[in-house]
Amino acid sequence: MQHSNFKIWSAEFLGTFWLTFGGCGSAVLAAAFPELGIGLLGVSLAFGLTVVTGAYAFGPVSGGHFNPAVSFGLVVAGRMPASQLPGYVVAQVVGACAAAGVLYFIASGKPGADLGGFAANGFGANSPGQYSMAAALVCEVVMTAFFLLVILGATAQRASNAFAGMAIGLCLALIHLVSIPVTNTSVNPARSTGPALFAPQWAMDQLWMFWVAPLVGAALGAIIYRVTMSESRTAQIA
Amino acid sequence: MQHSNFKIWSAEFLGTFWLTFGGCGSAVLAAAFPELGIGLLGVSLAFGLTVVTGAYAFGPVSGGHFNPAVSFGLVVAGRMPASQLPGYVVAQVVGACAAAGVLYFIASGKPGADLGGFAANGFGANSPGQYSMAAALVCEVVMTAFFLLVILGATAQRASNAFAGMAIGLCLALIHLVSIPVTNTSVNPARSTGPALFAPQWAMDQLWMFWVAPLVGAALGAIIYRVTMSESRTAQIA
Amino acid sequence: MQHSNFKIWSAEFLGTFWLTFGGCGSAVLAAAFPELGIGLLGVSLAFGLTVVTGAYAFGPVSGGHFNPAVSFGLVVAGRMPASQLPGYVVAQVVGACAAAGVLYFIASGKPGADLGGFAANGFGANSPGQYSMAAALVCEVVMTAFFLLVILGATAQRASNAFAGMAIGLCLALIHLVSIPVTNTSVNPARSTGPALFAPQWAMDQLWMFWVAPLVGAALGAIIYRVTMSESRTAQIA
Amino acid sequence: MQHSNFKIWSAEFLGTFWLTFGGCGSAVLAAAFPELGIGLLGVSLAFGLTVVTGAYAFGPVSGGHFNPAVSFGLVVAGRMPASQLPGYVVAQVVGACAAAGVLYFIASGKPGADLGGFAANGFGANSPGQYSMAAALVCEVVMTAFFLLVILGATAQRASNAFAGMAIGLCLALIHLVSIPVTNTSVNPARSTGPALFAPQWAMDQLWMFWVAPLVGAALGAIIYRVTMSESRTAQIA
Repeated sequence: MQHSNFKIWSAEFLGTFWLTFGGCGSAVLAAAFPELGIGLLGVSLAFGLTVVTGAYAFGPVSGGHFNPAVSFGLVVAGRMPASQLPGYVVAQVVGACAAAGVLYFIASGKPGADLGGFAANGFGANSPGQYSMAAALVCEVVMTAFFLLVILGATAQRASNAFAGMAIGLCLALIHLVSIPVTNTSVNPARSTGPALFAPQWAMDQLWMFWVAPLVGAALGAIIYRVTMSESRTAQIA
Repeated sequence: MQHSNFKIWSAEFLGTFWLTFGGCGSAVLAAAFPELGIGLLGVSLAFGLTVVTGAYAFGPVSGGHFNPAVSFGLVVAGRMPASQLPGYVVAQVVGACAAAGVLYFIASGKPGADLGGFAANGFGANSPGQYSMAAALVCEVVMTAFFLLVILGATAQRASNAFAGMAIGLCLALIHLVSIPVTNTSVNPARSTGPALFAPQWAMDQLWMFWVAPLVGAALGAIIYRVTMSESRTAQIA
Repeated sequence: MQHSNFKIWSAEFLGTFWLTFGGCGSAVLAAAFPELGIGLLGVSLAFGLTVVTGAYAFGPVSGGHFNPAVSFGLVVAGRMPASQLPGYVVAQVVGACAAAGVLYFIASGKPGADLGGFAANGFGANSPGQYSMAAALVCEVVMTAFFLLVILGATAQRASNAFAGMAIGLCLALIHLVSIPVTNTSVNPARSTGPALFAPQWAMDQLWMFWVAPLVGAALGAIIYRVTMSESRTAQIA
Repeated sequence: MQHSNFKIWSAEFLGTFWLTFGGCGSAVLAAAFPELGIGLLGVSLAFGLTVVTGAYAFGPVSGGHFNPAVSFGLVVAGRMPASQLPGYVVAQVVGACAAAGVLYFIASGKPGADLGGFAANGFGANSPGQYSMAAALVCEVVMTAFFLLVILGATAQRASNAFAGMAIGLCLALIHLVSIPVTNTSVNPARSTGPALFAPQWAMDQLWMFWVAPLVGAALGAIIYRVTMSESRTAQIA
């Protein structure tokens, strides 16, 4: 093994802390700031940049997943042994919960603070645009599937791997540009779990969706990749 | 051949699905979200990032065209054999139509959903800014011509090819930053065809323009490139 | 010589056309689009992306100046022979004027089109924020000086040159993010000259400023670079 | 030593001038421009782009710190000898003060100019969103700690170092996307000191916070990095 488990889990803890703190922090603190707020565009870029920066900083140690769905998809795609999955997922979820706690402390530190939904993910009445459970499910599955396709393609041997961190981070920005109105955008069960601890009760009630849909989408993306574009396929023919 | 046709067509199907789903999805779902909407700037970035991400993910397999006008321009420029054109175009159009269908399902999934023009392209009364057919035609031709110039230049042997995906995707973002008010921006007949299936009737009536203008512009860009900057010219002299 | 003059001048013509058409086009067509307009942020990114895309597409042929002040600064810095300057400047100015003409045709193509200042540069009463001639002069000089510092630094032998197109284009975006309110941002006499042909009379009256200030700033930047950071200095010591 | 002290200090002076002039300039001149202003999103990108451009331009000479907290963190991380710290910090603070002076001249150059807080950093009543001293302190410490983690990770031997300037600059943009409402975002004592000279008296009264918090955060980030991800650890095992 190239890096110790302590080092790998630290990288995933820090990266997922950063993703949740930066992404949800921009939503809670800055999105609706009077007159000058960054809006959904700013939040989308913030989520994307957490991954761009985390990928170049922590990626060389752990691969830079920061997301249980990504780790699971990489296992399905045959890129990571299943035995590593539990360590990755625990580090990610703990990181996201810690980030939500620190963010909660900061966001509460003003007179009359109103944290709203605290950037939690939801559907139906708790979808930012009131989208139904079915629409939310399809949206999260499709988005996570393509997230995995981009990750698997950009980190394939045939690709310009130094750009993978850029492509993958900007992919997360793109996913948010489209789907915040639908579910507040998860594609990442850890990112959904942290804020749900501090949000209104509905966030915990609907949290199952943001584990199920990203995991299903990630598996789907990994399978589509293996069927259509896997390098090993070529290798067998050659 | 480096990759099988199945693999190439899959890459073009997936990339064009992603371009249409991400780009048009941002327009339909998020552009005009109350207070916090991403506006034309967010839509422009979304279109650009579909190509940035698709280029690094699927580009190593198919070249990452995701656009019949690009494939056609590469044939005119002598970079791709004409025999490959039909397969590319069919995969692209099918991908765009599938994306529009999935987007339609999601966008319809809220009470009182109003899909407006469903991100279709138009001119005259259907131009976002009421621009005439002549203005729309010139705009699409010039934009597609420069799109091809950037593609051909950034993928030339003398260029830093690893940056091509970045340059080409950001070029599409730039094209949208300028021309959404004129035609809702096509420069891509597949991207225009998918949403037209689900948009009001005018979209299908005006669809011819968004095949003709991008194809003419692409050929023009390819010809200008060959006349002014082709590498083979230098090669003949040297 | 690596490339023929015809090829070099074509590259500068096309790149400066693209810079003027894309940058000024975003300002004229999309900045103030009702509700969804891209604002000064979108215009800043558009100008930046014209250079990012032009640098990777046309830069390998001509160096990718697209700006008489840049060409002049490179001569002062000892990076280009003075004999090449006239050809570069003529190609750039002609490209910018052609772009302004095409943009004028498109922008006029709607009922009741109001082109306002047509993205021309101005100061005093014609500054977007009513900034005085002195403020405008200092702003343009400082901005162009740093533009040259970034260009010279990012293209130095010791730097990661493949990133130069990115750094230089994003530098132009940054310059616009700061200074559009002061002068509508020039730092480029060609970009100022094209739109002045189609703008109200004041644009031509004040055009001298947007030749003088960028050229002075470029020379200043080149001199500061040579005094403080030139590589040849190190070479003499070593 | 690879470069003379004069050259290194010049690079840090110029880079910190650019960071302060560009970042604070965008806030003072363009953020709240009527109708078309760039808002907190534009200011965030401007700060980020000052570092992206400065890193590729001046980084090869000095390492591109432009920030006393970064220099201090690199000393704590064992990446720079402590003897170099005073020279770096003096050059940075002088550069930031010069930038604030030039910006003050330009910003004052319009009838009825109102410079407001002149982009100074503050907490409590002087926080843009009225955040308390405790919230401001935690926010600045956490942000600077992660800034150092990203810097140390992206410039480690195992990383794609050519991307470090991009990752680090975009990290500063991200930090601003989250925390402008809390403190106007410092993470950089030099950037805080320059504008405080020209801002209302409260800026100088609260300046201590924007030296203490970033320095503490930088040390914390460096220590976390050494404990969890240091390369020398691996080296000892191997």
